[in-house]
Amino acid sequence: MKLVCSQSSLSANLSLVSRAVSSRPSHPVLANILLIADEALQQVKLSAFDLSLGIQTSFPADVVTGGKLTLPAKLLTDIVSRLPEGDITLEDGNDEATNAADTNFLTTLTCASGRYQVRGMSAEEFPELPVVEEGEVAHLSVESLIEGLRSSLFSASSDETKQVLTGVHLTMQADGLEFAATDGHRLTVVQTVNADAIEGGAKPLDPEKALDVTIPAKALQELAKMLERQTVSNVAVHFDHSQVVFEWTDQRLTSRLLEGQYPNYRQLVPRQFSRQITAERRLLLSALERIAVLADQKNNIVKLTLDSTSQLLTLSVDAQDVGSGKETIPAQITGDDLDVAFNVKYLMDGLKAIATTEIQIQLNTATSPAIVTPLGSIKMTYLVMPVQVRGN
Amino acid sequence: MKLVCSQSSLSANLSLVSRAVSSRPSHPVLANILLIADEALQQVKLSAFDLSLGIQTSFPADVVTGGKLTLPAKLLTDIVSRLPEGDITLEDGNDEATNAADTNFLTTLTCASGRYQVRGMSAEEFPELPVVEEGEVAHLSVESLIEGLRSSLFSASSDETKQVLTGVHLTMQADGLEFAATDGHRLTVVQTVNADAIEGGAKPLDPEKALDVTIPAKALQELAKMLERQTVSNVAVHFDHSQVVFEWTDQRLTSRLLEGQYPNYRQLVPRQFSRQITAERRLLLSALERIAVLADQKNNIVKLTLDSTSQLLTLSVDAQDVGSGKETIPAQITGDDLDVAFNVKYLMDGLKAIATTEIQIQLNTATSPAIVTPLGSIKMTYLVMPVQVRGN
Repeated sequence: MKLVCSQSSLSANLSLVSRAVSSRPSHPVLANILLIADEALQQVKLSAFDLSLGIQTSFPADVVTGGKLTLPAKLLTDIVSRLPEGDITLEDGNDEATNAADTNFLTTLTCASGRYQVRGMSAEEFPELPVVEEGEVAHLSVESLIEGLRSSLFSASSDETKQVLTGVHLTMQADGLEFAATDGHRLTVVQTVNADAIEGGAKPLDPEKALDVTIPAKALQELAKMLERQTVSNVAVHFDHSQVVFEWTDQRLTSRLLEGQYPNYRQLVPRQFSRQITAERRLLLSALERIAVLADQKNNIVKLTLDSTSQLLTLSVDAQDVGSGKETIPAQITGDDLDVAFNVKYLMDGLKAIATTEIQIQLNTATSPAIVTPLGSIKMTYLVMPVQVRGN
Repeated sequence: MKLVCSQSSLSANLSLVSRAVSSRPSHPVLANILLIADEALQQVKLSAFDLSLGIQTSFPADVVTGGKLTLPAKLLTDIVSRLPEGDITLEDGNDEATNAADTNFLTTLTCASGRYQVRGMSAEEFPELPVVEEGEVAHLSVESLIEGLRSSLFSASSDETKQVLTGVHLTMQADGLEFAATDGHRLTVVQTVNADAIEGGAKPLDPEKALDVTIPAKALQELAKMLERQTVSNVAVHFDHSQVVFEWTDQRLTSRLLEGQYPNYRQLVPRQFSRQITAERRLLLSALERIAVLADQKNNIVKLTLDSTSQLLTLSVDAQDVGSGKETIPAQITGDDLDVAFNVKYLMDGLKAIATTEIQIQLNTATSPAIVTPLGSIKMTYLVMPVQVRGN
């Protein structure tokens, strides 16, 4: 194998696939990146796979002799990222004349200033990235995907024991995608409009075959990052009962699906509310951030006092022995006055994930779920449970 | 006590003195900041002290009633930094009318949007910052101080058991300041020109009274940061056998001195060299950074090969089982050819602390000290010992 490529494309593509390299690989080859140099296509394909998440990317290169091998991900990425801009030659130890393979998989990287040799491993040992051949295909709008992921990912659980809750649930509906994420304490549901429908868009949706999967949040975080750097407007999604593959131009992300029934979240969202607050998002968020300094000393509880007569929302915290705080902001409030307490971190998380100038909080009582929604933007519902406080 | 000040000056001054608040205070009051409101001067003075490092700063404020108290550093800094720009009112619970003191030291902070109460402690419990009354006074140029500190601090030891080596040794000489720092593996000596001399500059220097102290690196790091934000050109330094005080306009930094004899470092620097390399600093540093990726896998050793015939300096690393690397850069080399090995991190540290385009490495043999110096800038000597490698 021998190829010449630019430092910038090799470096960018290495750091891209590196995200799928396990930090504690269960097999030595999984600490490596698979490199396939295709002489006919004059391109290089890099793959990394931690047995759950897989990332593949291709870029043009001057491939003198095709071939494949695996190279240590961290070492190669660290060296290449520090090289000056310019051409890099990669060559393995296989002897073309005698067709003798180098069993050390010693690969030589040459650039203007120097020469590095790195020990690789056989490409044969590298596991194939999952392929979905028999499953369904959907086409999703990149804009909707990014929007839905960015608004929902923060609500997924980071506690690995919570299994299905460590993912985001994606449902394809008649005219869009629905994203849901919950860690058991709060829930985000986002509905986005999807320009395209299931392949062969004219057919009515077959509910048996529609997209209805739970994908690990970690894979979707990588997907969102990759898509944000793309100029494509659509991605193809292939899925069956255990795997999902997102695919576009030169890149591919595969992920296992999370097994188990996702909670029936739609029934958790109340349909009617007796109280409503409309407030400026930034004003409310920065007041909560100050209140959080004191709440952090105690139990993270902030008390909201709704006063519809004065049209003022008061936030207060009482951290005994340390101090207390009170902030008042103007708000449009309808419904009877009420004191209701929340975990201040959950409220802040929701407000940070929203981009609009104004938000709306709707609720019924101090013990029933409240929902936060952006005003005049995507359809997002953020549900939080109030906290029960003595004397409430 | 009652005062009104701007959020920006209170926040900036709080974060400044916070650097001297211990993260693990030996007494509860040391987690606090001492605040003194002076009605006559119409200014507020903040002090923090971890019993080794002390920082004091003053700023103008509208002081309605003078007074003093201590307040929790982290809590106060975190709240004030999150407040919007505007006036802040600080008021303690002392009742002026009855002259009754509030034994809870509950202080109220009021701003446009809200009101916070924070529990403080009596100012009486706060230890006085050290004052040097009988000692000597020197006036140092801020430019020289910053330059000397920035070029030497990185060589001080971060290992607390190394006592005197955790500091930087400062010596006032006839026409300048000398800074020395060593962790036992490398040594930096910087000579700076000092416009001013000992107070009453006309007198010859009394060697008994001249500045010759070892100051903890931590205190000097804070000093460098504070001075970089200053516009003053000179600072006064007061010192005796146990304390040093740096003082200018509205600020003051005090530090204990490190006890014990500082190593006689001047005798370590060779006076004559048989070999000399002049190279472009950035070119050498970036080649070392790539070599370091592989050296990091092994024992951090980089081999330098001096070739005066070709005027090339070759850097190489051999991390068995992982790989190897070689970089060649152009250099002006005098003296016989030589292979010499160094700890790559020490070489990189020295090159990073230098700002010039070109550097010079001077050495005699593969087992005697080498020195790195900037070309055409301040007088700085960075000494590193080669590493003994089998076969050298």
